[in-house]
Amino acid sequence: MKEVVAGVDIGGTNTVFGLVDRAGNILAENRICTTSYPEIDDFISILSNSITRLKSDLKDIKLIGIGVGAPNANYHKGTIELAPNLAWKGIVPFSALLKEKINLPVAITNDANAAAMGEMIFGAAKKVKDFIILTLGTGLGSGIVVNGELVYGHTGFAGELGHTIVVPGGRDCGCGRQGCLETYASATGLVRTVLYMLSEMKEESPLREIAPFNLTSKQIAEAAEKGDVIALEAFDYTAEMLAFGIINSVVFSSPEAVYLFGGLANAGKLIFDPVRKYVDLNIQPVFKGTVKILPSGIPENNAAVLGSAALAWKELSK
Amino acid sequence: MKEVVAGVDIGGTNTVFGLVDRAGNILAENRICTTSYPEIDDFISILSNSITRLKSDLKDIKLIGIGVGAPNANYHKGTIELAPNLAWKGIVPFSALLKEKINLPVAITNDANAAAMGEMIFGAAKKVKDFIILTLGTGLGSGIVVNGELVYGHTGFAGELGHTIVVPGGRDCGCGRQGCLETYASATGLVRTVLYMLSEMKEESPLREIAPFNLTSKQIAEAAEKGDVIALEAFDYTAEMLAFGIINSVVFSSPEAVYLFGGLANAGKLIFDPVRKYVDLNIQPVFKGTVKILPSGIPENNAAVLGSAALAWKELSK
Repeated sequence: MKEVVAGVDIGGTNTVFGLVDRAGNILAENRICTTSYPEIDDFISILSNSITRLKSDLKDIKLIGIGVGAPNANYHKGTIELAPNLAWKGIVPFSALLKEKINLPVAITNDANAAAMGEMIFGAAKKVKDFIILTLGTGLGSGIVVNGELVYGHTGFAGELGHTIVVPGGRDCGCGRQGCLETYASATGLVRTVLYMLSEMKEESPLREIAPFNLTSKQIAEAAEKGDVIALEAFDYTAEMLAFGIINSVVFSSPEAVYLFGGLANAGKLIFDPVRKYVDLNIQPVFKGTVKILPSGIPENNAAVLGSAALAWKELSK
Repeated sequence: MKEVVAGVDIGGTNTVFGLVDRAGNILAENRICTTSYPEIDDFISILSNSITRLKSDLKDIKLIGIGVGAPNANYHKGTIELAPNLAWKGIVPFSALLKEKINLPVAITNDANAAAMGEMIFGAAKKVKDFIILTLGTGLGSGIVVNGELVYGHTGFAGELGHTIVVPGGRDCGCGRQGCLETYASATGLVRTVLYMLSEMKEESPLREIAPFNLTSKQIAEAAEKGDVIALEAFDYTAEMLAFGIINSVVFSSPEAVYLFGGLANAGKLIFDPVRKYVDLNIQPVFKGTVKILPSGIPENNAAVLGSAALAWKELSK
């Protein structure tokens, strides 16, 4: 009997889940539509049944635990709390509900923490005890690992680096404040920066022909690849702000590496080169040359399932 | 036989050391003049002999370990590295040298980390697993505790919150950069802020009669107590900047408490009231009401010895 865990990633639209062995192989995978189950009890039933079915399709395997990544998930309490993109309102005792149904250990954390777990157990950080992962999507999520352990903090919500204020009185943030890192250093932040550059600069650019609502970080990367000055300037500024967030994090936990993951990280050299330049230029002298800025070692399409599965394996090893 | 450890605090001028039991009682204490021993070997000899003598003055005690707090000390390597206020140049293998002489386990860390250890083992944080201590003196030192363990980081130099940049392009800092937190939130920062307020505001103030070189945070606190508008404004601004540093730290590690220690913290309500106000006003919503801003529970005159002794006890308990 081969032991596996289930990794479950709950997104606003889809919930993806898979069975993952100790080496990080995904043996089977499936998905359900999150929005189809506005009642949490219905969602728990279908998820539990789907996992059981996935298992029964394979031979000689033993399911021994479940890890869940979800927005606004609290590791300490096993809850999903007030998640704006999910239909379940209030504080959902997710781990307890799922455990009751499936009778296995369940651990839950937010998506960025799950990404950190994935990086540590299956990815580029296998031998790295102190690191930070930044997930650069619509927002900026982060997972912080200190001495081989994920930092959850007193509340269970630690690692919200997207909400360090980098420009007091700066851009409006979804959290109700101004100038948070994620309003600059994320796919959305890059789009906002392009709009700002279009307002400041006079150069012609194909980006002037796209309605802001439709503008994507991928289009901006494509324009930058072709030498578009606006796009290049926007990448440079985004990288400077991201580097600023990184250097202020380095004084905190002195990581060996900072991994970049997600939409913006896929821009490769366009983002990594200037980030490394600005980190090197502006970091506190004592930390100069001590921190590597690296791409994540987890393939993006497997990251969600591998991250939550890694959480389950980590819990089982305790 | 009662077991004790020696706590040693190396300062630019004096080195203080004491024998401390498991409950935090200082059984004997003494000091030597750091500047009298510009050669590290001489210093190690005199320190080792002095500790041995201190021990021999007491009956029925057994010395089982030594903890050292020193500027620019590296916990991982046991070194003191390029400390600007000490005569020993380069990288001093302090722990190894002292251990060779006295044949006991030696652990070393910087002063602020030692303060965090003191708070955790003997002070206000005995039951607190996630906290930050900020030591507000000439600069701003910090010690960060996550899940009951001090954060040393990959380099051993983690916890340099005094060097988070809070005002890009702001005040010149001793580290060679601009706008670091400690240029605003420290005793020195308060003095700089008074000078700024004196330049901006027209109000009369006894602080206009003191040469900047001689101006102290204590004089500013006394003026504020008497209702001096400049001094009050300076405290308010200092508190706002300190609160800014705190809220950007809370998103990182979500501590249960932030302890303030040292010169500026002694100003009591003058600093605590506005810091709490600004933290409450500007903290990221998910952390609202989750973090206490508290005075250190260690008496200032014992803090150095108790902190380094706590480090020794912590190491011995591993």
